[in-house]
Amino acid sequence: MGKEGIRYAAKVDLEKPPTEQTCLHNRWHPDIPSTATIKNNEVVKIECIDWTGGQIKNNDSADDIKNVDLTRVHYLTGPFDIETAEPGDVLVLEIQDVQPLQEQPWGFTGIFAKENGGGFLDDLFPKPAKAIWDFEGIFCSSRHIPGVRFPGLIHPGILGCAPSASLLETWNKRESELVSNCKHLDHEVAKLPEPRNVHATTASADLKEKIGKEGARTIPGRPEHGGNCDIKNLSRGSKVYLPVHVSGAKFSVGDLHFSQGDGEISFCGAIEMAGVITIKFSVMKDGMKNLDMKSPIFVPGPVEPQFGPGRYIYFEGFSVDELGKQYYMDATVAYRQSCLRVFEWLRRFGYNDYQIYLLLSCAPIQGHIAGIVDIPNACTTLGLPIDIFDFDVSVEAKVEKRDLGSCAFASE
Amino acid sequence: MGKEGIRYAAKVDLEKPPTEQTCLHNRWHPDIPSTATIKNNEVVKIECIDWTGGQIKNNDSADDIKNVDLTRVHYLTGPFDIETAEPGDVLVLEIQDVQPLQEQPWGFTGIFAKENGGGFLDDLFPKPAKAIWDFEGIFCSSRHIPGVRFPGLIHPGILGCAPSASLLETWNKRESELVSNCKHLDHEVAKLPEPRNVHATTASADLKEKIGKEGARTIPGRPEHGGNCDIKNLSRGSKVYLPVHVSGAKFSVGDLHFSQGDGEISFCGAIEMAGVITIKFSVMKDGMKNLDMKSPIFVPGPVEPQFGPGRYIYFEGFSVDELGKQYYMDATVAYRQSCLRVFEWLRRFGYNDYQIYLLLSCAPIQGHIAGIVDIPNACTTLGLPIDIFDFDVSVEAKVEKRDLGSCAFASE
Amino acid sequence: MGKEGIRYAAKVDLEKPPTEQTCLHNRWHPDIPSTATIKNNEVVKIECIDWTGGQIKNNDSADDIKNVDLTRVHYLTGPFDIETAEPGDVLVLEIQDVQPLQEQPWGFTGIFAKENGGGFLDDLFPKPAKAIWDFEGIFCSSRHIPGVRFPGLIHPGILGCAPSASLLETWNKRESELVSNCKHLDHEVAKLPEPRNVHATTASADLKEKIGKEGARTIPGRPEHGGNCDIKNLSRGSKVYLPVHVSGAKFSVGDLHFSQGDGEISFCGAIEMAGVITIKFSVMKDGMKNLDMKSPIFVPGPVEPQFGPGRYIYFEGFSVDELGKQYYMDATVAYRQSCLRVFEWLRRFGYNDYQIYLLLSCAPIQGHIAGIVDIPNACTTLGLPIDIFDFDVSVEAKVEKRDLGSCAFASE
Amino acid sequence: MGKEGIRYAAKVDLEKPPTEQTCLHNRWHPDIPSTATIKNNEVVKIECIDWTGGQIKNNDSADDIKNVDLTRVHYLTGPFDIETAEPGDVLVLEIQDVQPLQEQPWGFTGIFAKENGGGFLDDLFPKPAKAIWDFEGIFCSSRHIPGVRFPGLIHPGILGCAPSASLLETWNKRESELVSNCKHLDHEVAKLPEPRNVHATTASADLKEKIGKEGARTIPGRPEHGGNCDIKNLSRGSKVYLPVHVSGAKFSVGDLHFSQGDGEISFCGAIEMAGVITIKFSVMKDGMKNLDMKSPIFVPGPVEPQFGPGRYIYFEGFSVDELGKQYYMDATVAYRQSCLRVFEWLRRFGYNDYQIYLLLSCAPIQGHIAGIVDIPNACTTLGLPIDIFDFDVSVEAKVEKRDLGSCAFASE
Repeated sequence: MGKEGIRYAAKVDLEKPPTEQTCLHNRWHPDIPSTATIKNNEVVKIECIDWTGGQIKNNDSADDIKNVDLTRVHYLTGPFDIETAEPGDVLVLEIQDVQPLQEQPWGFTGIFAKENGGGFLDDLFPKPAKAIWDFEGIFCSSRHIPGVRFPGLIHPGILGCAPSASLLETWNKRESELVSNCKHLDHEVAKLPEPRNVHATTASADLKEKIGKEGARTIPGRPEHGGNCDIKNLSRGSKVYLPVHVSGAKFSVGDLHFSQGDGEISFCGAIEMAGVITIKFSVMKDGMKNLDMKSPIFVPGPVEPQFGPGRYIYFEGFSVDELGKQYYMDATVAYRQSCLRVFEWLRRFGYNDYQIYLLLSCAPIQGHIAGIVDIPNACTTLGLPIDIFDFDVSVEAKVEKRDLGSCAFASE
Repeated sequence: MGKEGIRYAAKVDLEKPPTEQTCLHNRWHPDIPSTATIKNNEVVKIECIDWTGGQIKNNDSADDIKNVDLTRVHYLTGPFDIETAEPGDVLVLEIQDVQPLQEQPWGFTGIFAKENGGGFLDDLFPKPAKAIWDFEGIFCSSRHIPGVRFPGLIHPGILGCAPSASLLETWNKRESELVSNCKHLDHEVAKLPEPRNVHATTASADLKEKIGKEGARTIPGRPEHGGNCDIKNLSRGSKVYLPVHVSGAKFSVGDLHFSQGDGEISFCGAIEMAGVITIKFSVMKDGMKNLDMKSPIFVPGPVEPQFGPGRYIYFEGFSVDELGKQYYMDATVAYRQSCLRVFEWLRRFGYNDYQIYLLLSCAPIQGHIAGIVDIPNACTTLGLPIDIFDFDVSVEAKVEKRDLGSCAFASE
Repeated sequence: MGKEGIRYAAKVDLEKPPTEQTCLHNRWHPDIPSTATIKNNEVVKIECIDWTGGQIKNNDSADDIKNVDLTRVHYLTGPFDIETAEPGDVLVLEIQDVQPLQEQPWGFTGIFAKENGGGFLDDLFPKPAKAIWDFEGIFCSSRHIPGVRFPGLIHPGILGCAPSASLLETWNKRESELVSNCKHLDHEVAKLPEPRNVHATTASADLKEKIGKEGARTIPGRPEHGGNCDIKNLSRGSKVYLPVHVSGAKFSVGDLHFSQGDGEISFCGAIEMAGVITIKFSVMKDGMKNLDMKSPIFVPGPVEPQFGPGRYIYFEGFSVDELGKQYYMDATVAYRQSCLRVFEWLRRFGYNDYQIYLLLSCAPIQGHIAGIVDIPNACTTLGLPIDIFDFDVSVEAKVEKRDLGSCAFASE
Repeated sequence: MGKEGIRYAAKVDLEKPPTEQTCLHNRWHPDIPSTATIKNNEVVKIECIDWTGGQIKNNDSADDIKNVDLTRVHYLTGPFDIETAEPGDVLVLEIQDVQPLQEQPWGFTGIFAKENGGGFLDDLFPKPAKAIWDFEGIFCSSRHIPGVRFPGLIHPGILGCAPSASLLETWNKRESELVSNCKHLDHEVAKLPEPRNVHATTASADLKEKIGKEGARTIPGRPEHGGNCDIKNLSRGSKVYLPVHVSGAKFSVGDLHFSQGDGEISFCGAIEMAGVITIKFSVMKDGMKNLDMKSPIFVPGPVEPQFGPGRYIYFEGFSVDELGKQYYMDATVAYRQSCLRVFEWLRRFGYNDYQIYLLLSCAPIQGHIAGIVDIPNACTTLGLPIDIFDFDVSVEAKVEKRDLGSCAFASE
């Protein structure tokens, strides 16, 4: 890097709609042409819009959440060609910094309606809701969830290299099979390719049609490339190692989060924002073979917020659901129970259920798999940091219901 | 506490078989008479034998692991009556210390045979195996897994209060239903009451027969009382809050671990030991209602080993299994994948698969639920601390196969 | 804060010389008119130039360091009137963020010549030297000290409220007495008021003359207001509590550091930079009395880099100097010895003495007062984090002299 | 280590007076015969009595502190011959564990009378006082300082190898010179050899006389061998590297502390106890040359209590004393000021000055050298952990004087 500052590999313009941005796409497909080239060992800045492309506004109604159009997400910045990267290499990213865009110092957390998007607890909490967060340097707070304030563990929710054509085929095949096998269920189990609202600045009309038919949705992360992994610890200073599947890697990034809790439980659960990420890219030749790599790995940076282990309350969860049904070693059911325990805890202080749901999704909670072998009960723990509250929520706290306002709801 | 030291509420004698010990039991049942009484706010020491009751020896063969008799486990110390505790109260435990017994400064980690106990990865690694760990103050090392040494995050694997008769009935009913519903599966899904080898020092023959018929097995933890939760962070200094279901609480503890990784993946996966735990007991009247408590909670102590966030390698896992099958939001499948990634990583340095399986089970690895909303893929992460190795296993390491010996196996 | 971003209370222009900047001053004096007003509970951004006002350049010669004009330092931004602040109040600052200026992503560490500024070890290392650091997000590295790279613990070196007239008199009196009492020494012991190069944008010519005669120099911190305290831990998220001595507080800030080690031993020892600091100001009425406050206090933020306690080598120092002379309980002598031990350590790997001196000044080393009561030896410790090096400098390291280049020196 | 537990290299008997113990000495001298031999790479346990040899009792009077006989201290266990150690080698210690003796689960902190021992603040607080601490596993609390409880950072206050005859001569010479040069001072500046109450179990009467004349006192630590360094961080898991000056090393250890704050400011300031330390010894041949070692170094263990950086209040101190006198770069004066600020803080809550003095000495406070270059003011910081109090002492706390009892004082 010279004295003149770090080069921007991509910039966005918040005044324009996402469809007019010149460096975005919203599907994974190997044929999307690269928007720019980055040198091996180069450090660049990359700007990103929020994952919904500005659908969610800084106001006190959740109507925008209710009506969100999920065929349009996620708007990723890229793809970028990384010089010298070839299939079988590993792309090494050092995330040197992540920042909100200066001109938009706020973000949002949403709970989608059960019938449009849903979330981890949508059967219990089916209504759309929203919280707006104001950024105060490294901290954030929300008029919709008073009494809480915390430092962000800022990170990208999505990063990955493009799949090869054959990998894309594998994805589509296995997710289609799941859909076929689950027709009896009353909810969606996977997002298959969707022609509506495909966006890829760099693609021709014909190509867009192809992408619409074949392009993998950005909703799930996938083992072969990472993608939408939503790992809260990929913060400043982290190094991420990504498998390369196509020549040039075709790296994309987006879905920046100011903060997120383990699980991102409300789905739109992080503090979603527009921002800029500074990444150093380098190519590890033949890395997949040398590291015997099948999925991405990472090494966190050294600057995680530190609360001290004794400043968390941990809630146990087991794979017996709230109706008393016994599941066999199901960590998902167990973690759901750990989540529900936090509702019971925080309700006592005056928060409403949707405030708690929002908070659990975006605050730096720790979700652990504790025991996964004592049949039939998986055991998980969920650690709630008590120092994010400006009143005492510890076990010793004197409990009294406070007036803690409300999150934003949709008009009926 | 006076000047004369802390009172022992129970002592064991390692020279005697468990069946001759006077303060043990191996089933959960409300009718097991208390072995001793502890005052409210009293601090006591409680000795425990290892969970198998001495079945596993400090030698270089895994024959004992292969032939382990699981109808006899877990040997717990108790039950203890805590004065003033009544149903609806919360029993507060401060775990002031946990230590191995001076006369037995070693422990074991085992992999049970697929056909006798099994573990999280028994379909891939079906053979019995064992590692013996020598304790060196706060550290441990093993002749069966050279090149690794780490401080123990010492803790009890099991603690809980006795169930009430009606709670016991609930447990037996729901676990029986699971067994009924899973008859098509080729493996055991739950441990129902088992009359063989019931042990309860304080019980009459008639009572023992009743316990054999009704007593809940100690293998799973259960949401209503905790029990076998296997939470690695319940270490020195932790406070644990347990629901009380019977008069006097009838608290029991056992299954002490010198160390364990999140998940305890090989089932006999912690470093199992005989030891002594120092606990302060106090009763929070009406705690279950006041805390709206449905499952135990805890606050960790301040002395967890600290490696620094940048001293872990994190492995991502998604709910697609190793055969390419897509599961729907299954965190258990995802964590299994995170585990498998560590095998691939460590094999390159010369460890055999069973050494890795043992190590993953007992070393202080961090298992997180990262994303649980992006259908259909749950995402987990598993953090491997690199400072437990005395050679470089980082991403930058020069990889060469070392002679790293072997764990103990069974004779054919 | 509204949606439109945080207000700038002061901006600088790096294209202009400091004397043409409109919001700076370089002496402490109660009569310097305020440059702007800040509301109680307001959050503002404040830009600062580097402490020397651009005297030091991004090049490979230390001539600028050799010839630095110390009558001109430190250029502080301010003073700011904080609404409602009155003498006796405490001004509460939350440091929400500190960043380098985007257009100048580099900083410098200097060793002043013994005859012009000097430093903690100038009798041993009298020559001027310099290292330029490039900022890479939260990290920095230097072409002048290869092999090392670390995250910055970014902070302001100077912040404080203006002294009252009588406090200023106290300062001048006690420092003059020291100068009088130390005439026999061969070095400067304090910086008394200096008319040359007084800068105060907002002051008239007459006032400037007065400031030149009376204004306290910014070189030392002072107990009554803090000022140049050079505390490395006043980083993002910290709260600082400052005594207020004049109406409006007249707060100033400057001397921003990308990183610094405990002691800042080479004097120009931090990584000095131009930057922007985001502060929330609030006034605690009668705080000095209520807190019984005589000197500033602070509470660090939650985001310090974490290396893990076992990733430091600690060097002991005692109050016996390198010639074998015994001092009585002198922690300054002891810390000097701790510093010298690091030279001996790092020389073995190929660094030259001036590189080590620079590194010790700016890297996140931990300087502790260990024992201060065992006559006649004070004992200090200095912790060197080994993870800032990209080769092994641990006790177990295989030592070999590397080619580690050189820092910048002055032409002869 | 075999299966039978770790060998004791020395045991003490608390029923006997120190003069009848068989493995103790209380001066540093190369001729003291070894009490036992330890193999290279061997792990042993070593028992120690408290530093005063039982002079201080578990009661509520400080008469014993007032009348303490300091000619008898410190009682160290040793010396031990370490096989293969020769001058020029480095003795590597891994401190695998430190524990109080089971039969004496309490310790003491004392403030010596100004006229008999004194301490860092004896001019302000000249009276003798005492607090007794009860050990509760890893925690301690005191009936003499209610409202506070913390985990111990348990460690040895003294460890070192015997000086050679010529090194001993150097010590005696330089400390005598200091005494000669300070005759004008009204207080003792160093402890010269003292024939009274020399103890060395293994020495003949003639040798004892020689030791009395020449033997170095144990009060100060010294740069060439460490000794009484009082470093709170030499806790479980630490590795210490000590220079060897005589054949066999002649290692001694004692002055075990359950906890101590940086500075150990009241002199008898740690929580002093009898205990047992488990150490692995290994010899690094030619280590002094290879490491260019002039003073001991150490690497802390991984299990320090973690409070989180934001759970400390830091108090700034500068080298201007409480009478307003300006000192030149004197870190000792500055740290004294940091200490005094804590008195002002805690008095507001109801503690008396001697309780605060005791607490500051033994609680895990962090003392840092912040700035040591801005003439004439050294700046130190002292971090007070707020989580050791069971009521709120933070800046935001509602201050009210509580009834916090009293420490033990001497009868008049």
